[in-house]
Amino acid sequence: MARNTAVAADTAAPPATRRLAEFVVSHPSAGWNAQIDAEARRTIQNWAGCAIGAAHHPATDAALAAAADLGSAPQASILGRGERVDIASAALVNGISSHLFDYDDTHLKTIIHPAGPVVSAALALAEKSGASGRALLDATVLGIDVACRVGNAVYPEHYDRGWHITGSTGMLGAAAACARLLGLDVERATMALGIAASTPTGVREQFGSMTKAFHPGNAARAGLMAALFARHGYTASARALEAPRGLMQTFSTKCDWREIDGALGERFEIAFNTYKPFACGVVIHPCIDGCVELATAHRLSPDDVAKVSLRVHPLVLELTGKTAPRTGLEGKFSVYHACAAGIVAGRAGEAEFSDGMVARADLVALRQRIVATVDPSIDEAACDVTIECRDGRRLHTFVAHAIGSLERPLDDPALARKFHDLADGVLGKAQADACIAACATLQTAPDVRALVDSARPGTASRG
Amino acid sequence: MARNTAVAADTAAPPATRRLAEFVVSHPSAGWNAQIDAEARRTIQNWAGCAIGAAHHPATDAALAAAADLGSAPQASILGRGERVDIASAALVNGISSHLFDYDDTHLKTIIHPAGPVVSAALALAEKSGASGRALLDATVLGIDVACRVGNAVYPEHYDRGWHITGSTGMLGAAAACARLLGLDVERATMALGIAASTPTGVREQFGSMTKAFHPGNAARAGLMAALFARHGYTASARALEAPRGLMQTFSTKCDWREIDGALGERFEIAFNTYKPFACGVVIHPCIDGCVELATAHRLSPDDVAKVSLRVHPLVLELTGKTAPRTGLEGKFSVYHACAAGIVAGRAGEAEFSDGMVARADLVALRQRIVATVDPSIDEAACDVTIECRDGRRLHTFVAHAIGSLERPLDDPALARKFHDLADGVLGKAQADACIAACATLQTAPDVRALVDSARPGTASRG
Repeated sequence: MARNTAVAADTAAPPATRRLAEFVVSHPSAGWNAQIDAEARRTIQNWAGCAIGAAHHPATDAALAAAADLGSAPQASILGRGERVDIASAALVNGISSHLFDYDDTHLKTIIHPAGPVVSAALALAEKSGASGRALLDATVLGIDVACRVGNAVYPEHYDRGWHITGSTGMLGAAAACARLLGLDVERATMALGIAASTPTGVREQFGSMTKAFHPGNAARAGLMAALFARHGYTASARALEAPRGLMQTFSTKCDWREIDGALGERFEIAFNTYKPFACGVVIHPCIDGCVELATAHRLSPDDVAKVSLRVHPLVLELTGKTAPRTGLEGKFSVYHACAAGIVAGRAGEAEFSDGMVARADLVALRQRIVATVDPSIDEAACDVTIECRDGRRLHTFVAHAIGSLERPLDDPALARKFHDLADGVLGKAQADACIAACATLQTAPDVRALVDSARPGTASRG
Repeated sequence: MARNTAVAADTAAPPATRRLAEFVVSHPSAGWNAQIDAEARRTIQNWAGCAIGAAHHPATDAALAAAADLGSAPQASILGRGERVDIASAALVNGISSHLFDYDDTHLKTIIHPAGPVVSAALALAEKSGASGRALLDATVLGIDVACRVGNAVYPEHYDRGWHITGSTGMLGAAAACARLLGLDVERATMALGIAASTPTGVREQFGSMTKAFHPGNAARAGLMAALFARHGYTASARALEAPRGLMQTFSTKCDWREIDGALGERFEIAFNTYKPFACGVVIHPCIDGCVELATAHRLSPDDVAKVSLRVHPLVLELTGKTAPRTGLEGKFSVYHACAAGIVAGRAGEAEFSDGMVARADLVALRQRIVATVDPSIDEAACDVTIECRDGRRLHTFVAHAIGSLERPLDDPALARKFHDLADGVLGKAQADACIAACATLQTAPDVRALVDSARPGTASRG
């Protein structure tokens, strides 16, 4: 009758929960170099642009309608809209909208999109509490460090198993950021991380539905609530992350504890954050980049193309192998549509992933002439692209690192163009410029009002 | 460079998400026998008693303070208190308080405590929407069926891995109950279960802290929100439970799909629900029962006892092996304290798990004379107890099934005594009687007001 209850467990794990809490509450403000601080501003700007761009997406509407069912109090702003809701709902809804276009930031070591959980929670709390721009930047750097370090420790096994790592580690980053903003002591910050450790969000089966974007939003909400609970004396295990029946050993077969505190306070994970030039999962960016490069250089029209051959890392087809996407959202999970769009439009922004583009006859015809082959020798960052033309030309490129990667980062002007691309239609160009400026000057801003006000439509015309 | 992304996956899983959604929205009201319906009322009564009893626990206070931080709107009642909060917070807080004493109901096939997630969500929604008592009973039976069927499919591997199964399946039951109450169609109910599938709560490392009770509360909140999101058109994967990267295959190595729809609509899992006579985890109830039996029959005083020898199932020491508990809460995870209290007090209600009882010198001395030995031949439901007395007597009993088990259930008078034990100090005896009566007549109640009003302190004296 006895059953095997002996799951392999590491009982000697270091005190990860407490160590991260100590770090978050005690690291000096701006205790890093100027490049890290600039990266925090770039991360917030990119996140805000994505959230504003998707402010009127049906998923955002539905999430706000659910918040309204709760009679939500007007405490914090929804970026790109006029509504104000309670801080938990603001964290949730802004986290959702920031990820809906699959266009947000990516910590490439783990494929975590850290701003969605961390900044969505931190900005909502900062707006209500009147925290300074400096405090928001500090919370962003430290919160992202916590989420990504836990991610480093469990990636890739944890992700391979089925977890959407952005939502399943993001609540820890959000809790850390909010613990910092609330000024919790070490004990309560430990409890905040401990409570958050019971609320991972998200499985990969949701990719292609609105619930994928729910993951960073719910992680933001969960982390914020964990910090509020801890502030009021709610307790958790101080070993909730690392114990044998704690989160990390429960949801991952790999737990590399050295990732938790290796060079803690010296190496900051936000340095590894990147911003997408294409509005879809990073795994197919090398493919799109190669197709855009060849189509642009050789001025190809769709009719010129007889066949496109891609040699890709296995994850490309596992994650984005949809051959017949029916909606724009599904198109983001189709390497075939994404590359066809890249060839036809010379880009793959949000407009290229509309329902209309996915249904366009020339794009459907072109995507059917694209063949992707898994090649285990191809790195996850790379892609080998060959285009055979109807006139007999055979064009080839090998993309080692796509535009937007750490090796070829988007510079500030490109990031501003991306922001305008997303926000101008919602805010108008003048307010979009103001929002970019507000992000760029956060380190001296007395509070976050300039940021949230510039992100509310109609503010400029009113005053 | 390629990594192994091939996790064993069952791609042929049946459509569990949709099948459960169809069942929940289409099964006839009261489509079961009278015994099942009575069990639903007993489940609600037992849940309410537990929540009322812990209404002023510091964890309940902290959770309500966090809800107040959100400026929560007065939509639904907190049992045993005067405050009213938004329905999501009510589901959360009542779910927490119902589990704080570890005294709530138990589906013994899975160790799920189903009322915390399911009834906490359903009652909050029913109060706001004006649903009938009949509708609440229907939602309770169907919601519990969904949570426990998923639990049956993944238990015990899922639990052994570290998940607190009440919180990691409960959100599905809560979503199902709320989908039923909201009258969602099959498609939207499928989405509700799908969204909920991304929000499992809870790891077992939290046992002994307030966060254990957070698990059913957060599951209630998550399920309710999933149903509200779905009502407003939010989408999820329709295979979120069963797909290779869906919840069940992600968080369990065992997935017995036959448990999902075997005798669906004929066998109801609430029939396997039980109510605790002792205010701690069921795993040590056989031990306590045996100790109470011998101490009562032989009128033992602590000084009579030289040594207590327990032969127990391995889970007993894995879950409740604390030899030196410092608080009442930790005492619930100490088979030593629980049995010492049973011998001294002849019972093990909430009062026997106070901080004071755990620190009492005679109890500390007695618990140090208790020895528990794992015996793989002992069933999880059983315990072998031998008490050696200082006068040389050797007393023995074998408990095959503890009081409160399916084989020896608490009858209605015992359940009423338990309710009064928990609620009289909060509500007074007259209101406690009214609350029991409100539960007993739910099937004909036009709404749930009699239940929630009787659970609000001071109602009787006011009118």
